[in-house]
Amino acid sequence: MRKIQITVIQVDCYGPWTVTPSPKPESELQILQSRLYADLQEKFSSLGGLVFQARQDNMLAISNGLTMDDHRRIQMEIVERFPVTVSMGVGCAEKPYDAQVAATLALQSTGSSRNPDRKSKLAGTTVVPPDEDWVEIVHMDVNHSTLLTDTKPIYETQLLINEILTFLMKRMLRHGGMVFYMGGDNFMAVSNGIDEKVLIEILKDLKLELGVEMKAGLGKARRAANAAKLASQALHEIRSGKSRTNIIVKCED
Amino acid sequence: MRKIQITVIQVDCYGPWTVTPSPKPESELQILQSRLYADLQEKFSSLGGLVFQARQDNMLAISNGLTMDDHRRIQMEIVERFPVTVSMGVGCAEKPYDAQVAATLALQSTGSSRNPDRKSKLAGTTVVPPDEDWVEIVHMDVNHSTLLTDTKPIYETQLLINEILTFLMKRMLRHGGMVFYMGGDNFMAVSNGIDEKVLIEILKDLKLELGVEMKAGLGKARRAANAAKLASQALHEIRSGKSRTNIIVKCED
Amino acid sequence: MRKIQITVIQVDCYGPWTVTPSPKPESELQILQSRLYADLQEKFSSLGGLVFQARQDNMLAISNGLTMDDHRRIQMEIVERFPVTVSMGVGCAEKPYDAQVAATLALQSTGSSRNPDRKSKLAGTTVVPPDEDWVEIVHMDVNHSTLLTDTKPIYETQLLINEILTFLMKRMLRHGGMVFYMGGDNFMAVSNGIDEKVLIEILKDLKLELGVEMKAGLGKARRAANAAKLASQALHEIRSGKSRTNIIVKCED
Amino acid sequence: MRKIQITVIQVDCYGPWTVTPSPKPESELQILQSRLYADLQEKFSSLGGLVFQARQDNMLAISNGLTMDDHRRIQMEIVERFPVTVSMGVGCAEKPYDAQVAATLALQSTGSSRNPDRKSKLAGTTVVPPDEDWVEIVHMDVNHSTLLTDTKPIYETQLLINEILTFLMKRMLRHGGMVFYMGGDNFMAVSNGIDEKVLIEILKDLKLELGVEMKAGLGKARRAANAAKLASQALHEIRSGKSRTNIIVKCED
Repeated sequence: MRKIQITVIQVDCYGPWTVTPSPKPESELQILQSRLYADLQEKFSSLGGLVFQARQDNMLAISNGLTMDDHRRIQMEIVERFPVTVSMGVGCAEKPYDAQVAATLALQSTGSSRNPDRKSKLAGTTVVPPDEDWVEIVHMDVNHSTLLTDTKPIYETQLLINEILTFLMKRMLRHGGMVFYMGGDNFMAVSNGIDEKVLIEILKDLKLELGVEMKAGLGKARRAANAAKLASQALHEIRSGKSRTNIIVKCED
Repeated sequence: MRKIQITVIQVDCYGPWTVTPSPKPESELQILQSRLYADLQEKFSSLGGLVFQARQDNMLAISNGLTMDDHRRIQMEIVERFPVTVSMGVGCAEKPYDAQVAATLALQSTGSSRNPDRKSKLAGTTVVPPDEDWVEIVHMDVNHSTLLTDTKPIYETQLLINEILTFLMKRMLRHGGMVFYMGGDNFMAVSNGIDEKVLIEILKDLKLELGVEMKAGLGKARRAANAAKLASQALHEIRSGKSRTNIIVKCED
Repeated sequence: MRKIQITVIQVDCYGPWTVTPSPKPESELQILQSRLYADLQEKFSSLGGLVFQARQDNMLAISNGLTMDDHRRIQMEIVERFPVTVSMGVGCAEKPYDAQVAATLALQSTGSSRNPDRKSKLAGTTVVPPDEDWVEIVHMDVNHSTLLTDTKPIYETQLLINEILTFLMKRMLRHGGMVFYMGGDNFMAVSNGIDEKVLIEILKDLKLELGVEMKAGLGKARRAANAAKLASQALHEIRSGKSRTNIIVKCED
Repeated sequence: MRKIQITVIQVDCYGPWTVTPSPKPESELQILQSRLYADLQEKFSSLGGLVFQARQDNMLAISNGLTMDDHRRIQMEIVERFPVTVSMGVGCAEKPYDAQVAATLALQSTGSSRNPDRKSKLAGTTVVPPDEDWVEIVHMDVNHSTLLTDTKPIYETQLLINEILTFLMKRMLRHGGMVFYMGGDNFMAVSNGIDEKVLIEILKDLKLELGVEMKAGLGKARRAANAAKLASQALHEIRSGKSRTNIIVKCED
C-alpha cells in the first residue's frame, strides 16, 4: 500500500514570543518567517522532501524518505540558527489529508503550541517499509496570466488568485488532497490517489465558476522533490505547446 | 490632502527565468522568493516602509517617505545580490486601492513583465509635498486561535484562514482598502480612510458568515513602520484584556 | 577636531554557547558567523557605516553618524533574528587605533565576554558635535594578482596574502591605523591622519620585503560608506590606467 | 592508500564584476561574499564536507564523499540564487597541500579566473575507490584567550591571532598541511599524515616564538564533517580539564 508521509512543523510558543517584551516590528517577524521557511526548505529538499509555507508559523512538508533522525537533525540546526525552536509531528496515510491529520495529532500529543516547556519536540511515524513511499503532486498554473499581470491592477489579480486557491482547496479536499499557493500564478496539490479524470473535472468546474482556464502537470515518484520535478516538467510541456491537452502525467520508472 | 504611497515590485521576466534552460526545482524557487522578500522587507522597513509578499513575484509595499532615489538604490542592491532584477511602479492616492492602481499603471508603462529588455525599471510619483504622507494600517487576529491550532488538523485551520482572507479582501475593497495575510492568524489591512464603524461592521458580518470572532488594532502615522507598530500595540492591548472592546485606535502625535 | 568613531561588536558568551550542550558542528558555527556578519553589515551600512569581520565573534565597525539609539535598534534586531545576542562598545578619537581602544574599554566595562548575564549591553560615546565626524579609508590591492590566481596553487597565494596582511597591520599600527582583509587581493585600512607620503613609503617597503607591488585609493568623508566609495573609485582609476601613480586621494566636498 | 579530496571553488570573473559598471559598495560585496560562503558551507556540509572561506573569492573545501555530480548540483543551485557563478577544481592526494595543488591545476585547466566565458566549469578527479577516503583535521585554540578578550584592545588580539595564523600556516606547510582561521581563537588544520609528535613540537615552538599556549584536538574519519566533529570533541575534553595533555586524538571506528 503506497503512502504519503507528511510532517507538520510548528514554531514553539511563537505567538507569545512575537509580543515579548512588547510587540516586535512586523517587518522583523516577516523576515524571520521567510528565513525560517527558506532554511527548512533547504534542509527538507536536500533530503528529497518539499515544504509548503502554509500558515508560516505552521508549515507542512512532504517528507517521504526522511527518517525520524533526519527530522531531529533539522530541529537541531534550527536551534543553532534562529531565536525560536520548532516541534514536528510526522504522519502517513494513503491520502494526503489523512497523513496530515495523523501528523497533527502526533504534534498535538507533545503539548500545546503555547506551552513554554515544549521545545523541539518530535512525534509520529514514518512510512514502513520504505518501498511503500509514494508521492503524487500536481503543479497547476493559469493560462495567459501574463495578460492579467500586464493589464490589470496587481491587487485585483491577487484577489482572483485567492479565489482560485479557495476553490481548489475545497474541491481537492473532497478527494483527500491538499492545495498550496506557490507564488505567481502557481499552485501545487499533494494529490495521492486523485486521478486525471478528477483533475479534468475540477479544472472544468473552475472555468465555469471563475472564468479562469488552468493547466496541470501531474508527477508521481517515491520522493516529493522528484514528483514535483516531474509535475513541473509536465506543465512545461503543455506551456511549450507540445501537447493539445491541458493535463500531462509523468511517473518515475 | 493625506495620501498613501504604494510601490508595486515586480520580478523582471520571472516566468521565463524559472523554466530556463529547464524547469528549476520548486524548492529553489521557494528559497529565492523567500530571500528576495526578506531583503526587500529589510530595505523598505529600514526607511520606514513595509512590504507585503502578495504574489511573491509581484510584491506590494507601503512606501511613504521613500524617494525615487531610495527606490533606485534598493533596485541596485537587489542586482548585486540576486540572479534576478526587479522593476517598480510608485503611485499615491487618498485610498490604498487607488494608489495601487496608479503604481501598477506606472509599472506597466515600463513594458511587459515578460519583456527580456525590461530590467530594473522605475516609474511613478511619490507624495508631494511630504507633509501629506499618511498611512493607516489595521492589524487583526482571530480570537482563541490557539484552541484551533491545538485541536484541529492544521490544514483545516488553513482553509478557514483562507476563507477569512477572501472575506476581508472583498469587504475592504468596497472601501478602497487592501488586505494581506501575515502568517499565523494575523491579517493586515492598508485602510486609509476606513473608519472604526466600518471595521466594527465588517468584523460583525465576518462572525455571522464564518462564525469567527476577530479583534483589530488600527494605527495611523506618517510612515508604514510606525502605523504598523501602533496597530500591533493596539491589538496587543485588546489581547491583554486591558479593554473590553475588540477595536482600539492609536494615532501618531 | 576631526574624529573617527569605532564600534566593537562582541557576541555575548559565544565560546560557551558553541559547546553547549556539546560542541556544535563547525559548519553550523561558520554559517551563523557569516549570517551574523552579513546582517550587521547590512544594518550599519544602511546608516552610512561599515563593518569589518575581524575575529568574527568580535567585529569592528566604523560608525560615524550612528547614534547610541541606532546601536540599540540594531541590537534589538539581532535578538529577533539570531540565537545569540551582541554587546557593543563605542569610542571616538583622532586616530583609529585609539578610538578602538576607547570602544574596547567601554565594552569591557559592561562585563566579561563570558558572563552569562551580559546580554545586548551598550556603552561608550559618539562623536560630539557631529560636524567633527571624519573617516579616512585606504582601499589597496595587489598588482597583477590575476597572474597569481591563474598560475599558483590557491593556498600559496593565501599564505602570501596573510603575510601582506601582517606586514600592513604592523606598519599602519605605528601611525595609529588599522588594516583589515576584505577578500580576494583586497585590503582596507582605517587611516585617519595617515598621509599619502606614509602610504607611499609603506608600499615601497612592502615591495622590498615581500616582492609584491600594491596600489592604493584613499577616500575621505564624513561617513565610512562614502569614504570607502571614494577609496574604491580612486583605486579603480589606477587600475584602469588613468593614472601613472599608484596612489590617488579623493575627498568629499 | 588513504587520500584527502580537496575542492577549489572560484567565483567566475569576480574582479571585473565588482567594478561593473562602477565599483560596487564594499558593504554589498561583503554581504555577497558572506552569503555565498554560508550557502556553499550548507551544501558541502550536508554531504559530509567542510568549506574554508580562505580568500572568499577562492574557497577551499574538503570534499571526500562528494561525487562530480554532487559538485555540479551545487554549482546549479548557486546559479539559481546568486548573481555570480562558481567554477570548481577537484583533486586528491595523500597530503592536503598536494590535493590542493591538483585541485588548483584542474581548475586552472578550465580557463582564466577573468575569462568572461568561463562559467560554472568543473574539472578534476575524486577519490577512487571510495574506501580510500580519509580526512584528518586538527582543531586548535588559544589557552585563556578570554583573558585577552576581556583585558586587551580587540585589535591587538587580532594582530596576535594573525601572527599565530602565519606561524601555523608556515610550520604545517612543511608537512603538507593547510591551516585556516575559523573565528574567535579557533584554527583548523587539514593535517592528513601529520602525527601527534609533530603537533606537539609545533605548539611548543609557537609558545617559544609568540609566548602563546595552545591546545589541539585531532579527529580522523572518512568524511570532513565527522573528522571535524571528533576534533572539536577532543578539544572540548581538554578544555573541560578531563585531560592533562594539550593534545587528544580521536579516530572514527
